Amino acid sequence: MENRFIGRNRPARMVYGFDDVSLVPGPLTLDPRDVDTSTNIGGMTLQLPILGAAMDGVIDPRMAAHMGKLGALGVLNLEGIFTRYQDPYEIIDTLIALPRDQVTQFLQKVYRAPIQDELVTLMIAQIKKNGGPAAASVTPARANTLGMSAIQAGLDLLIIQSTVTTVRFESVSSPIFDLSLFCKNSPIPVLVGNCASFGAAIELMRAGAAGILVGIGPGAACTTRAVLGIGVPQITATVDAAAARDEYLRATGRRVSIITDGGMRVGGDVAKAIAAGADAVMLGSPLAYADEAPGKGHHWGMATPDPNLPRGTLVKTGVSGTLEEILLGPSHTTDGTMNFVGALRGSMGSLGARNIREMQNAEIVISPTIWTEGKFLQKSQAVGMGR
Amino acid sequence: MENRFIGRNRPARMVYGFDDVSLVPGPLTLDPRDVDTSTNIGGMTLQLPILGAAMDGVIDPRMAAHMGKLGALGVLNLEGIFTRYQDPYEIIDTLIALPRDQVTQFLQKVYRAPIQDELVTLMIAQIKKNGGPAAASVTPARANTLGMSAIQAGLDLLIIQSTVTTVRFESVSSPIFDLSLFCKNSPIPVLVGNCASFGAAIELMRAGAAGILVGIGPGAACTTRAVLGIGVPQITATVDAAAARDEYLRATGRRVSIITDGGMRVGGDVAKAIAAGADAVMLGSPLAYADEAPGKGHHWGMATPDPNLPRGTLVKTGVSGTLEEILLGPSHTTDGTMNFVGALRGSMGSLGARNIREMQNAEIVISPTIWTEGKFLQKSQAVGMGR
Amino acid sequence: MENRFIGRNRPARMVYGFDDVSLVPGPLTLDPRDVDTSTNIGGMTLQLPILGAAMDGVIDPRMAAHMGKLGALGVLNLEGIFTRYQDPYEIIDTLIALPRDQVTQFLQKVYRAPIQDELVTLMIAQIKKNGGPAAASVTPARANTLGMSAIQAGLDLLIIQSTVTTVRFESVSSPIFDLSLFCKNSPIPVLVGNCASFGAAIELMRAGAAGILVGIGPGAACTTRAVLGIGVPQITATVDAAAARDEYLRATGRRVSIITDGGMRVGGDVAKAIAAGADAVMLGSPLAYADEAPGKGHHWGMATPDPNLPRGTLVKTGVSGTLEEILLGPSHTTDGTMNFVGALRGSMGSLGARNIREMQNAEIVISPTIWTEGKFLQKSQAVGMGR
Amino acid sequence: MENRFIGRNRPARMVYGFDDVSLVPGPLTLDPRDVDTSTNIGGMTLQLPILGAAMDGVIDPRMAAHMGKLGALGVLNLEGIFTRYQDPYEIIDTLIALPRDQVTQFLQKVYRAPIQDELVTLMIAQIKKNGGPAAASVTPARANTLGMSAIQAGLDLLIIQSTVTTVRFESVSSPIFDLSLFCKNSPIPVLVGNCASFGAAIELMRAGAAGILVGIGPGAACTTRAVLGIGVPQITATVDAAAARDEYLRATGRRVSIITDGGMRVGGDVAKAIAAGADAVMLGSPLAYADEAPGKGHHWGMATPDPNLPRGTLVKTGVSGTLEEILLGPSHTTDGTMNFVGALRGSMGSLGARNIREMQNAEIVISPTIWTEGKFLQKSQAVGMGR
Repeated sequence: MENRFIGRNRPARMVYGFDDVSLVPGPLTLDPRDVDTSTNIGGMTLQLPILGAAMDGVIDPRMAAHMGKLGALGVLNLEGIFTRYQDPYEIIDTLIALPRDQVTQFLQKVYRAPIQDELVTLMIAQIKKNGGPAAASVTPARANTLGMSAIQAGLDLLIIQSTVTTVRFESVSSPIFDLSLFCKNSPIPVLVGNCASFGAAIELMRAGAAGILVGIGPGAACTTRAVLGIGVPQITATVDAAAARDEYLRATGRRVSIITDGGMRVGGDVAKAIAAGADAVMLGSPLAYADEAPGKGHHWGMATPDPNLPRGTLVKTGVSGTLEEILLGPSHTTDGTMNFVGALRGSMGSLGARNIREMQNAEIVISPTIWTEGKFLQKSQAVGMGR
Repeated sequence: MENRFIGRNRPARMVYGFDDVSLVPGPLTLDPRDVDTSTNIGGMTLQLPILGAAMDGVIDPRMAAHMGKLGALGVLNLEGIFTRYQDPYEIIDTLIALPRDQVTQFLQKVYRAPIQDELVTLMIAQIKKNGGPAAASVTPARANTLGMSAIQAGLDLLIIQSTVTTVRFESVSSPIFDLSLFCKNSPIPVLVGNCASFGAAIELMRAGAAGILVGIGPGAACTTRAVLGIGVPQITATVDAAAARDEYLRATGRRVSIITDGGMRVGGDVAKAIAAGADAVMLGSPLAYADEAPGKGHHWGMATPDPNLPRGTLVKTGVSGTLEEILLGPSHTTDGTMNFVGALRGSMGSLGARNIREMQNAEIVISPTIWTEGKFLQKSQAVGMGR
Repeated sequence: MENRFIGRNRPARMVYGFDDVSLVPGPLTLDPRDVDTSTNIGGMTLQLPILGAAMDGVIDPRMAAHMGKLGALGVLNLEGIFTRYQDPYEIIDTLIALPRDQVTQFLQKVYRAPIQDELVTLMIAQIKKNGGPAAASVTPARANTLGMSAIQAGLDLLIIQSTVTTVRFESVSSPIFDLSLFCKNSPIPVLVGNCASFGAAIELMRAGAAGILVGIGPGAACTTRAVLGIGVPQITATVDAAAARDEYLRATGRRVSIITDGGMRVGGDVAKAIAAGADAVMLGSPLAYADEAPGKGHHWGMATPDPNLPRGTLVKTGVSGTLEEILLGPSHTTDGTMNFVGALRGSMGSLGARNIREMQNAEIVISPTIWTEGKFLQKSQAVGMGR
Repeated sequence: MENRFIGRNRPARMVYGFDDVSLVPGPLTLDPRDVDTSTNIGGMTLQLPILGAAMDGVIDPRMAAHMGKLGALGVLNLEGIFTRYQDPYEIIDTLIALPRDQVTQFLQKVYRAPIQDELVTLMIAQIKKNGGPAAASVTPARANTLGMSAIQAGLDLLIIQSTVTTVRFESVSSPIFDLSLFCKNSPIPVLVGNCASFGAAIELMRAGAAGILVGIGPGAACTTRAVLGIGVPQITATVDAAAARDEYLRATGRRVSIITDGGMRVGGDVAKAIAAGADAVMLGSPLAYADEAPGKGHHWGMATPDPNLPRGTLVKTGVSGTLEEILLGPSHTTDGTMNFVGALRGSMGSLGARNIREMQNAEIVISPTIWTEGKFLQKSQAVGMGR
C-alpha cells in the first residue's frame, strides 16, 4: 500500500481507477480465439465473465434470458418497476418523453408503488421459460421477505445489494438483517455488495457470501461521489477485494467470486478490471445501448428515486446494436463500446493470458498520460466517427 | 507531512483539496437516521454543523434567523450593505440588473458608504426577534469599534475575519489590533480567521480564539489565488488546523472549534471537510441558491469591493429551493447541491460514524481519478438534468 | 524503475508519455547547422531519422520514393489497398466523401479484397524506379508468403508488424510463424514490432530482428487503449526498449535499431523520443498533412478494417505543405507541425547534442505542468493561427 | 532534488510551474503599504521588481521611458522593428489588420529588413530624453556590433538574449561570441539569458553576467516547447537559478540578479516567481494590455519571424487600462491582471515578507488541486466578468 500524507500526521492511501492505469503486453502472445473467458460465479459457470446490472433501464426478464443464452448473466431488480407495475413499459415511455427537469420527481413517485408478489413470481418464471438462469437483486431490508419469495419462485442466484453493504449494520428503528443466517439458510448462492475495502469484503466472505460486488459510486448513472463524498476508484477497490478473496481462500479453502460493478464504459475497462483481480464484471450503461434493453436507449441509477436524497441521473445512451453485437461482435464502431468479449479476448491474447485466472496476473502500469493522449483524443474522435 | 522538492534544496509539501480525495467505507454501517450531527462552536451547540458565510448575497437578518431556527448559524457581515444602507435590497436589485462589466466598479462604490451604528443595532435586534442566535463578522481593523458596538447590541457570537488573519500584524500607519486583549475582554465567544497553517492557527488559539476559520482563497466567489498567488487547498488546511486544535487541547484542556470556510459545493465536500477534522463548515455559494437568500440567486465575494485590488466576482447561481430543502431536504436534484445534512447523515451512516467526532476519523484516500470519472461526468450530467 | 502500489500488495510502475516530459538544455549549445541527424536502421544509413508509417493514407509508392530521396524512409503497407486494387485512388476518393457513420463498415469491406502478387511486385518496382530504397511491412501471418514475395521482388528492408508482436505466439488453429528462422533466412534486414516492454524487445533481438518498433496504441488513428485496455506511453516504452538494445549490445556486440512508432504530433515529440533512446521515429499523422500523401489530407488506422473488432478511426488532417516543407522546412506555421528535422536540429543544438547518439543522453524532466501551460495554450493558439 | 524514473535505469527530475504551486501564509502579517518592493538589477535600483520584455508589441521608446518613470524597467529589442523601420507603427497597423493565416509569413518578411544604426541611436536617445534609464536587448551574434553601438549611444543596461544562451557555444560557420571578454570590456552591466539550469546559470555568472534571465519556452507567445520539446516550468527553473546565485555569492561575494522571464499572467504568478527566488520578473503579455503598449492590444513572440522555424504566435490581448493601472492600480478587474504591484504588496503582507529578500523565503506548497479549483473556475468567471 502506498501511503502519503494529506496534512500533519494524517496518512492517506493513493487509489487508482480505470483511466489511471493501462495493461502491458509481455513476451508471450496467444491467438485470441484460443483464450478461455469462462468464469465461476457462486458455483455457476458463465461462458462470459459479464453480469448485467440490476437497473430497470437495462434488465427486464427478456433481456435477462437473452444474456443467459449468450453465456452471460442478467440480474433483475426485484424492487424495480417490473415488480411494481403490470405495464412497466408504459412507465418507461412516459419517463423518456419527460422534460429533463421533471425526471427526478417522476422517478421518486414511480418507485413509491407497492411491489407485488405475483409479479415477482411471474418475472422469474418468464426468465426461466425463456431459457436463462434467473438472477435477481434485493436490498438488505427486503432480503428476508422479497428475497425469500423470489427464491421460492425458483430463483437461481440472489444478490443482496445496496450502496454500501456491511455485515455489521446498526439501527435504532429498523430491524437488523442477519446476513450470516440468511446465507446459511439460503438454498441458492448469495452474492453481496457493494463494498470497496479489504476489511468489509472479508467480513462479507466470513458471513457466507458466495460472491462480492465491488464498487461504490463508480457508475455513469450514479452521483454518490458528489452527494456523499464516498467512493473508491475501481482498480484499487478490485485489487483489495481480490486480496481479501485470496486471503480467505488460503484460510478456508473456499473461493468467493469478485465482481467489479460499475464504471466500465469500453472493452479495455473490462480487461483492466479482470487484470486487477475480478472474476467477472457487472455492466450497466454499456448494455443500455442494446436494442433489447428495456430503456430504449436510456437508463437511470437505482438510487435516483430515493425520496429524500436522490443520487442518480437519467442518462440517454441511444441504441447502437443488438445485445449480441455489444457482447460478442462483430463491431462496427471503433471506440471500444461494442464486442466487449472480443475485446477481452484480444486483450488476453496480447497479454498472453490463457484464461481469467492468468488474466488476473497481467501487468498493470500507472499512466498519468493515458487520459491526456487517450481519453481526450478518443472523445473528440468519437464525435467525429459517430456511433 | 509529505515533502517533495521543487528545485535544488527547496522542499515543498504536497497539499490536497476536496476533488483530490474521497472517503472510504469500512466494515460498519449505521442507519443515517441515528447519527448525531450536532456540534459545538465556541460553546454554542448547533444541531447542524453548518454556518452561513458573512456575504451580503447570502445572509441578511431574516436568513440568519431562519438558519438559526433550523439548527444552523447564519453570520451577518457587519461591514456589508445591511449596515450601510436603509434599503439594501434596492442596492441588490440594481446590482443584479447591471451589465457584467460594470459590476466591480459599482460594488467598489457601494461599499464606500459609511456604516451606521443604528443599523448595526437594528439588524442584530431583527435576528434575535426572529428567534435566531445572532452571529456577525467584522474585520480586525473595526473589531474594537464596530465589533464592540455589536456586542453591546446583544450579539451572541463574533467572528473577526479577513483574507489572512494572524495574531502578529505589523503596520506603520494603522493602529495594531490586540486580539488577546479583545478575547480576554469579550463577553461572548470570538471566532477568528482565516488561516491555513498549523502555526498561525495555534497562535490564534493561544490568543484566546474560541474557534478558527480555515480557508484562504477556496471560495467560488474569490480570486485570491490568482491575484495574490496565495492559497492552501481545504483538505490539507483543515487537517493541519485540526492538528493544532488537538495539540492545543492536549496542552491546555481547552477545545477550540475548527470551521472549514469556503470551497464546498456539494454534500460530499461537507462530509470530506468534517472527515478532515472540521467541527463545522461555513457555506457561501450553496446557500445563495436558497429562495430566502437576499441575493435573489446571486452572490459576490467580500473582497470584490476592495477599491485598489478587487479579488472577487459576482456569481449568478439561480434559485433552486427553500433553505430548508437545501439544508434538510427533501432533494429533487441529484447533483449533491440540496439536502446537505441528509447527505452528511448518509455519508456518516455509510462510514459508520455515530457523531461528528467519529466522522473526524473516517478514512480518506487520495484519488487522482475522482476528478476525471466523477466531476467531469457530473458536470455534463448536471447540464443534462437541469436543476 | 519506480514502483507504486495500486492496492494491497499489487505493485505497478509509473509510466510516462510525450506530454509528461520535457528536455532541459545544459551548459553547452551548438549551431543547429552543424549537428548530424543521420542514423543507422538495420544496416541502412538514413540522413534523417524518420520513417513513414505503413498506413494507406500516408505512404504509396510515390510518397515512399520521395521520402527516400529526402533521406528518410517510407514504409509501404503490403496488405493495404495498393496491393489489393488496380486503382486504389478511387477507393480513397470514395472513402473521404463518405458520411462519417459509414466509414468503418466501408473500410471493413475494402480490406476484404484479395492481395495480388503482381501488384506487390509492381509497387516495389515503382518505389525503386523512382529512386528510393524499398521498405514495406507485413503481418506475421503473411510474412512467409507475402513477405517472401516482396523480398524476391527486390525489397530492401522488411518490417513484420502487428499490434503486439512477440517471438512466442501460441495458436491452436493458425500456423505458427518462426521469426528466428525467417530472420536467419532473410537476405535483407528484418525489423519487428510492435512491442512495449524490455522483455519482449530482448526476445525479438535474440530472434534476429535488425530493429524493433516500439509503440502499442499511441497513434492518433488508433483506439487500442480504449478497446483492449493495453498501452504504454511512448517515453517509458522507448527508454525500456533502448535499455534492451544496450544490454543486448553489451552481450553480443550487435546493435539493434530502436524506432519509436506513433503518437508524435510535433517536432518536440520527435526530439523527446530520440532523447528517450530511439535511433529513429516512425511518423503517421504528421506526414498525412503532406501534399504528396495519398490520403489527400486524411488517414486511418490500419486496425480500423478489422472485421470483428475495429480499433482505429479516420482522421481528417487537411494538407499543410509539401513533404519537403514538413520534413525540412521552411515552416510557415508556428505550432511544430512543419520542419520536423529543422526542429530536431534546433533541439539538438540547444541541448548540445552533436549527433543522435549524444541526443539519446539529453536530460529529460517530468513536468506535470507542461500539459497545462503548453498543450492547452497551443491548442487554442493553433486555432487562432489557422493552419 | 526529486528524482523519479521514466523507465529502466533512466532517472528524471520532477519539475514545477506556476499552476502547480501556491504560497502559504504563516503566523505574521504586514500592512501591504509598508512592504518594500525595491530590488537591485545589475547594480541599478528599481522601485518595482518588474522588467518589460523586449518584444515589439510591448516596448517602444515611449513605453520604456514610461516604465522607467514608474520605477520599473522597459527593455527595447535592438533587433526589432523600431531599429529597422522609420515608421514602425505602420508595420504594426498592417500586421494587426492581416488575416491570421498571413501573419507568420508577413512577420518573416518584416524582420528581413536591415537594422539601421542611426535608428538605434535615435531610439536610445528618445528613451533617455523622456526620463527613463535605457535598457535594450541583442542576440549573442550581434552583441559585438549592434550591442556595442548601443552602448556608445548611451545605453544604461544591456541584455544579451536568445532562446537558449550558454557560455560555451560551438559553430563551424559562425564566429564564436566571447561572453567573458564582452562582460569584461563592457562599461555597463550585462544581463544574459535565457537559461533554465543550475549548471548553465553558474557558468554565465562566472563569465561576468550581472544578471541572468530564466525561462525557456514559458511565454504565452512562444511555442518552443512544442517545436523543440524543450522547456522547464518556471518555478523549478527559478529555484535552480537562485541556488546558483546563492552558491556563486558564497564563493565570490558578488550577487548576480535572477530575473524570471515569461509565463506570468496574473499578479499571483509574479508573487510565486519571487517566492521561488527571483530578484525581479520580466513581463510580456501582461504589459501588452496597456494603453501605451505599441502593439495596440496585440503582441508576438520574438521567435515568430524565424525564416526557417518560426516558434511564436501573434496573440490578441486587447487593451485593459493604462500602464500605471496595470502596474500600480487601482484595478477594476478581479482576475489578477491589473495592479501587479498592489497584488505583490498584498501577497508580501499576507506572507509577512518585509522586502524582496524575505519574500524569496516564503513557503511554497505543491498543489495538484489549485488548477482544478482555481484556474478552471477563474477562467469561466473571467468570461462572466468581462474585462
